[in-house]
Amino acid sequence: MSSPTMQPPPALIATLPGNHYVSDAVFAAEQERIFESTWICAVRSSELAAPGKFKKVQVGRESVLLVRGRDGLLRAFLNVCRHRGAQLCTEPEGQVRRNLRCPYHSWTYALDGKLVAAPNIGSLTDETGAGIDRYRYGLIPVALTEWLGYAWVCLSDTPPPFDDVVAETTRTLGDPDTINRYGIGGLDVGHREVYDVAANWKLIVENFMECYHCSSIHPELVGVLPEFAKGVAAQANTGRGAEFGPGVAGFTVDGAAGFDRLPGITDEQDRRYYAITVKPTVFINLVPDHIIFHRMYPMSPSRTIVECDWLYTADVVAAGRDVSHSVELFHRVNQQDFAACERTQPAMSSRAYRNGGVLVPVEHHIAEFHQWVVSRLGA
Amino acid sequence: MSSPTMQPPPALIATLPGNHYVSDAVFAAEQERIFESTWICAVRSSELAAPGKFKKVQVGRESVLLVRGRDGLLRAFLNVCRHRGAQLCTEPEGQVRRNLRCPYHSWTYALDGKLVAAPNIGSLTDETGAGIDRYRYGLIPVALTEWLGYAWVCLSDTPPPFDDVVAETTRTLGDPDTINRYGIGGLDVGHREVYDVAANWKLIVENFMECYHCSSIHPELVGVLPEFAKGVAAQANTGRGAEFGPGVAGFTVDGAAGFDRLPGITDEQDRRYYAITVKPTVFINLVPDHIIFHRMYPMSPSRTIVECDWLYTADVVAAGRDVSHSVELFHRVNQQDFAACERTQPAMSSRAYRNGGVLVPVEHHIAEFHQWVVSRLGA
Amino acid sequence: MSSPTMQPPPALIATLPGNHYVSDAVFAAEQERIFESTWICAVRSSELAAPGKFKKVQVGRESVLLVRGRDGLLRAFLNVCRHRGAQLCTEPEGQVRRNLRCPYHSWTYALDGKLVAAPNIGSLTDETGAGIDRYRYGLIPVALTEWLGYAWVCLSDTPPPFDDVVAETTRTLGDPDTINRYGIGGLDVGHREVYDVAANWKLIVENFMECYHCSSIHPELVGVLPEFAKGVAAQANTGRGAEFGPGVAGFTVDGAAGFDRLPGITDEQDRRYYAITVKPTVFINLVPDHIIFHRMYPMSPSRTIVECDWLYTADVVAAGRDVSHSVELFHRVNQQDFAACERTQPAMSSRAYRNGGVLVPVEHHIAEFHQWVVSRLGA
Repeated sequence: MSSPTMQPPPALIATLPGNHYVSDAVFAAEQERIFESTWICAVRSSELAAPGKFKKVQVGRESVLLVRGRDGLLRAFLNVCRHRGAQLCTEPEGQVRRNLRCPYHSWTYALDGKLVAAPNIGSLTDETGAGIDRYRYGLIPVALTEWLGYAWVCLSDTPPPFDDVVAETTRTLGDPDTINRYGIGGLDVGHREVYDVAANWKLIVENFMECYHCSSIHPELVGVLPEFAKGVAAQANTGRGAEFGPGVAGFTVDGAAGFDRLPGITDEQDRRYYAITVKPTVFINLVPDHIIFHRMYPMSPSRTIVECDWLYTADVVAAGRDVSHSVELFHRVNQQDFAACERTQPAMSSRAYRNGGVLVPVEHHIAEFHQWVVSRLGA
Repeated sequence: MSSPTMQPPPALIATLPGNHYVSDAVFAAEQERIFESTWICAVRSSELAAPGKFKKVQVGRESVLLVRGRDGLLRAFLNVCRHRGAQLCTEPEGQVRRNLRCPYHSWTYALDGKLVAAPNIGSLTDETGAGIDRYRYGLIPVALTEWLGYAWVCLSDTPPPFDDVVAETTRTLGDPDTINRYGIGGLDVGHREVYDVAANWKLIVENFMECYHCSSIHPELVGVLPEFAKGVAAQANTGRGAEFGPGVAGFTVDGAAGFDRLPGITDEQDRRYYAITVKPTVFINLVPDHIIFHRMYPMSPSRTIVECDWLYTADVVAAGRDVSHSVELFHRVNQQDFAACERTQPAMSSRAYRNGGVLVPVEHHIAEFHQWVVSRLGA
Repeated sequence: MSSPTMQPPPALIATLPGNHYVSDAVFAAEQERIFESTWICAVRSSELAAPGKFKKVQVGRESVLLVRGRDGLLRAFLNVCRHRGAQLCTEPEGQVRRNLRCPYHSWTYALDGKLVAAPNIGSLTDETGAGIDRYRYGLIPVALTEWLGYAWVCLSDTPPPFDDVVAETTRTLGDPDTINRYGIGGLDVGHREVYDVAANWKLIVENFMECYHCSSIHPELVGVLPEFAKGVAAQANTGRGAEFGPGVAGFTVDGAAGFDRLPGITDEQDRRYYAITVKPTVFINLVPDHIIFHRMYPMSPSRTIVECDWLYTADVVAAGRDVSHSVELFHRVNQQDFAACERTQPAMSSRAYRNGGVLVPVEHHIAEFHQWVVSRLGA
């Protein structure tokens, strides 16, 4: 997109052009070919532990309803009545006793999606004289898989293999077993924070992927991980992560001690911080005593909601122990990062960014993310 | 629009596809070919009883000014000065003494639209040396007819016959004389309510046309009209209407007695409720002692303002009798209906509604409305 | 655009069609071919007197940063970091000590735009082994000229001659020396007012250019300049201006005396009011003892911000003398004018204005402005 004479020197790689961050057409293509076609992390499974518990989640442009069945299975459906299109659930979450009933005309669905009742529906027959197919007119199912204690959903009729998600996650860590040792699925949510960010989702991904900005905007994080002052991101070093500073006792805002290290991790994983990007919308930070798990909800080209969970052992959460020192550290990092992204968004429409900006060497791995986006959009 | 294999069984008819309820292009076509081409009910004539009284009404995308002339005639004009385009009237309603004067440059129009004065205008001549044609540069007239005590306007240069509006109205009732017996033109407005509904206007029409939802969301209405529990709409039964329940004394929220029945109606019309849809934007309910008259103002694909008049005899209104029992019944019905429509609007953009939903047999008459909309858009 | 049979008589000239005032496409073309291609008056130079003082200004769709260098020169740049696009300055104005540092990754620019520092940048080389060109990756400069005490900027890579701006300004006044006699560059800002107007920028230009509305909406102005009651604009009479009324001592809201006349003006300029339009966004009023200087910032097809400076001699401002009588006069005129423009904007989308309105003879000079706009858009 830049002219030959404007090629940056090899040390500098071009970013995506600015219009990729502001165009409604690009965002619509991303909705269709990324958020509505790949696996999206939707809810913490434990939030929907009991039969009949449901939660409504935005996935791409769709409202998706996740509900625990009486058989103990978690399922996902499009949140739309098959009759005249009313939303079945308008509340963000709740619990039904037995079925999901549309309040408009009382079409009623079992928790597995089957249409079980509707006024006069008993007498309806199709052209063969048979009754209405109760699954054909049941709720439209959405593919669902559980991993790391979260339910991941995919709106595609032909979802890609979920193994690809797992493989991408473990690739950053080098060893496929590394992430399993943290036992993330068995942890509890100690704290959740929701951020409404006035920036394109890709700016947030790019920010998370590099540490060239760490020395400029993250004094607390660099205090705990002094090697971040050099600007090399943890995820650019396969398997190595970043080491706590000598005087640092725990991954907390003041470097004070945290909790006991998670039971499964190795000595090598102790006193280390790992960061993983699971495209398109998940970031995970691994530290010895807790996990920080981010999910993004892209709402418009210039607005993204980010939900961040701090996960601890069931013991820590059940005992009501004070998690504020560890929460405060990454909460500040998030606020610093999102302020930087919001400062960047307005310039994406400038002629100065028409051909994009540049990536310095410690940011070069971001180009892979750009290539992935472009290849998805061209698909 | 659905593929052959997705044909619903004959008992179920497809609705319009979801995009008809959300697309800006469809809404623009509806503005042009429906709201700006057909007769639209604009104001209660009695609101503009005195010469010089005016009211500003939104018709399609136009601001229309209705004004009573000194000759007693009601007229409608585009609310735009012919000179440089300032709106003549910015207040919703009011009264002028003699003329309509544009406050920007003082171009002044008689109440019949003629340009009667403007600074320096006396000396202006056209190419033949004649003075300016005071009607050619007068206010642009809009067709207007009065019926049922309301002024109906049509923005088209070639308005369709108004008789078609009358015929459509009386068709639902079977007998052309039925509506006349209520003497609607002579009634007074006892109460007016305005609703701002976050739903497409067609969802509101469809809702009004069927009673399949009555048992689910209208307990008070079904209390008065018990046959509505079966889901058959009053307007699907030509001429018959719906009968009050045995213990019901009047069309009130608690079934208590209303007022004396309107003088002109027959015994057959007593203790009965009739509902009429006058496309595109009017709903009328006839009960023995009052009339409920709805007008819609579609503002965007997902927003419609509904104005509802409760009409009683002049005696009832002049005596200040308590109309709250009858008002409260349909006010609750309106709130229940509009909540259902607002719950339906968000799903119109879902892939689940890409080919629309289905109409059950007691809703099949809604398909005529859909065909009418599609035929207007294709015109 | 109007059909032959609808040609107005010669005394009436057509305006632009209504869509020119509401269309997003027209506004985008105006941004590109007018506001981002011609000289735009940006800031009062004296606001940025000290080295390191900066101010952020919206020019077309761009955020432009004006900053005073340590060499005393005022420069303008696109307000975008060359690395990853963060806005350098998000505050409206301020002062830096030595350099402009991007807070995201600490890329740092000298006040002449040169990239002077960035983490790791020292080791970067291009394909020839040379270091990074510090100007090629410096801030992108914007053309800047100072005149009348203001900095004017032009986003075009090939700015038109600034002499054209000067020539247009003096053409209205007949004599090229007239404006210079007021010594505008040496005056101080005694008062500034900012108006947020819900109208297209061209409606504001047209309003400023004609006085046919003066007798209708400007009682105070006509009180001071009684000849304005005839509707002939000061700028339609080359060089003549408009004369103060017999009993008027100064250009004040009550006709009371103002301040000493500006030292350079001639007797002929005394007791006279001149008005100049400098396309596209500047209006200047000259009166004997002060200058009223308007700048517009078109924000959308239907929103324009207007910033208005009242300029007096340094003596008047330094002594803190009461300028409220002169400020109040044109502040009222502005409020009256902008209310008229806001009343006009809604009708621009009416079918009544599809072919535009008409200009009466005392407004005919506005047609030149329309032709200029159309010729720019067609360019």
